[in-house]
This record gives sequence, structure tokens and C-alpha cells, in this order.
Amino acid sequence: MQELKERIVRDGEIYPGDVLKVSSFLNHQLDTELLDHIGKKIAELFSGDKITKIMTVEASGIAIAMAAARYINAPIVFAKKNKNKNLSADVYSREVFSYTKGASNLIQVEKRFIKADDVILIIDDFLAKGSALNALTDMVKESGAKLAGCAIAIEKAYQGGGDEIRAKGIRVESLAKIESMSVENGIVFAD
Amino acid sequence: MQELKERIVRDGEIYPGDVLKVSSFLNHQLDTELLDHIGKKIAELFSGDKITKIMTVEASGIAIAMAAARYINAPIVFAKKNKNKNLSADVYSREVFSYTKGASNLIQVEKRFIKADDVILIIDDFLAKGSALNALTDMVKESGAKLAGCAIAIEKAYQGGGDEIRAKGIRVESLAKIESMSVENGIVFAD
Repeated sequence: MQELKERIVRDGEIYPGDVLKVSSFLNHQLDTELLDHIGKKIAELFSGDKITKIMTVEASGIAIAMAAARYINAPIVFAKKNKNKNLSADVYSREVFSYTKGASNLIQVEKRFIKADDVILIIDDFLAKGSALNALTDMVKESGAKLAGCAIAIEKAYQGGGDEIRAKGIRVESLAKIESMSVENGIVFAD
Repeated sequence: MQELKERIVRDGEIYPGDVLKVSSFLNHQLDTELLDHIGKKIAELFSGDKITKIMTVEASGIAIAMAAARYINAPIVFAKKNKNKNLSADVYSREVFSYTKGASNLIQVEKRFIKADDVILIIDDFLAKGSALNALTDMVKESGAKLAGCAIAIEKAYQGGGDEIRAKGIRVESLAKIESMSVENGIVFAD
């Protein structure tokens, strides 16, 4: 998606340790017009599937899921992080390692919100090593629902998580796929 | 807002310890059609103000902020919880006690995303004792920006947080204001 790539080049901030900050438009401050275009694009990519539910994980994923829901007209369920006494006991539960926070999180989804006859589209802001995405696809598998695929705003393709998931036969669409990134040479997109 | 109140009565789950679960439509699974109506209503309430930025706190607040942004056409900035190495050093920072999680969270907003000439609308899903809302209004005050007010989906009015903030001269609009709530007697709305 050209608009997103241009925005990453313009406003993305690269730091040592493979950190790409997109805080000014995607995951702290939200450019709601750009998000609307991202949501529309995701809906187009999966227009052939009859999505009945969008799944994501808090927090930044929620914004993109909301943007897509405007065009897909499906409810969203977002996985919650950490222990939360408002969750019922009957949950899908996975450990996810966050490289940004340098710690593991338990993510949970109440089982009643994913039904075996659902067609699920998973949405997230970032895909790097695939820890969160693996957890979400795994939950869908456990539920017996059909997984239409995954839509990601930014994939760090060189970290391999996306291709690992594609190798399982899961459709993964990334709107901006980064092939390499460094403070010295900036960002090279995969296509 | 009649539609929201009816939904709370129909699908809200009351548990001992003053817990109201609205997981099936507002903060775990998201009814995106209801959220759209909530967003539209919030935009109407603040249509006289020239909002330049919506402010909220992760995670559930993001969904409502996104719904409102569709009608308000402003960017969002959401406060982040916990330490996050992707945040710059220059942040507004407040301690917030979460009764749901039984623990304190540090919430943070990068200073560059709130400017002195901004007109801010704060949005959140719940208002009870007002810990999160106090932190957000306080950050706006520190920034020198103008605060148009706060829009809340569900206010537990009997916990007093809303009136405390109103007493400071801040406009707080709640779409469903609960006057009392118990497992035995259900929910009584304030108006």
C-alpha cells in the first residue's frame, strides 16, 4: 500500500536494536484518515471471504480492526493482555513474548466469542517474529472456526515470522513489507 | 443514549464486588454497529467545539475513540500503559489505579502529541472513581491545551468520580449513567 509505505519513510523513526517507531501515526498517535484507508484496503483484500468476525490483540490492533470493521461490517474480538478479573474462566490462553517490552504476556480470549461456524480475519499492526500472530491463529484453530487469513499493517519480513505462518498454508497480507532496515540505510520494502 | 442503556440491561452481567461486565459488546468483543452509534452521538454532543484531537487510554477506549473520530475527523492519541521502550523520554506521566486489575498502572503520553493550541476531547469506556480520567484531564492541563470535555460510554455515577471532575468545571458527558447497581435489583439509570 503506497500511502502507508510513504508514511513510514516520512515519519517512521529507526533506532538501533531494530526498533521502528511509528508512534506519530499508527500506535500512539493515530492518523485516523490513514487508518481509514488501511481499513478499506484490508476489506478489499478479503472481500471474497464472508468474514463474520475480526480478531485482534490489544492495544494498537484495535484501531486497525475498527477501521476495517467499517468496511467489513463484522464485530471484533480483541485478545486481552495479562490477568483480568473481568474475564470468565473459559478462555483461550497463550503466552506471547513482546520484543518491544522485553517480557512475556499472557493473552486471552473468552471462548464464547469465537464459534466453530465463524469465519475469522485476524488483524494486527506489526508482524515481526510472529509471536502474537501465532498465538491468535492457534486460538482460531483450537476453536474450530475457519481462518480466512491475517491482515497486517507493517511486516518486518526479514524477521521471518510472516513466512513461518505462510508456510502453514495461512494467508498473510501485509500492507507494507520491510525487507531490510537500518539507521544507516533506512528502509527497503520487499516489493 | 437509549440504545446503549437497553444493551447494558440486556447483555451486561453484574457480579458481586460491583463488577459490571460488558465484554460481549464494549470491551472484549466489540459490537461495531453499536460503537458507530456511540461515536456519532459523542460527535453530536461536542459538535459546537472545534476538536483538534481525541485523547483516550488503551485499550478499550481506543475503539470508542475510533468510532467518534469517523464523525469528528480528528487524530487520536492514546495513553500507553506500563513502561514501553518505544516511548520517547519526553512524556506526560501519571499513576492510575485500576480497580478491575487491582493494581496501579503508569500511563504515558508523549508530549509532542498534545500541543498548546489543541482542543482536546477525552473519550473512555468507563468512569467510576475517575482515576484514569483525572490523569488524562491533568495531562491536558499540564500541556496548556484547551479541554473541550470528556465523553464516557458508561458512568457508575454512585462512585462519585464523574461529579468530582464536573466540580472542577470540566464538562463530562456520559451516554449511560448508572445510579445504582446490584445483583439483586439490577441496574437503575440516573435519568
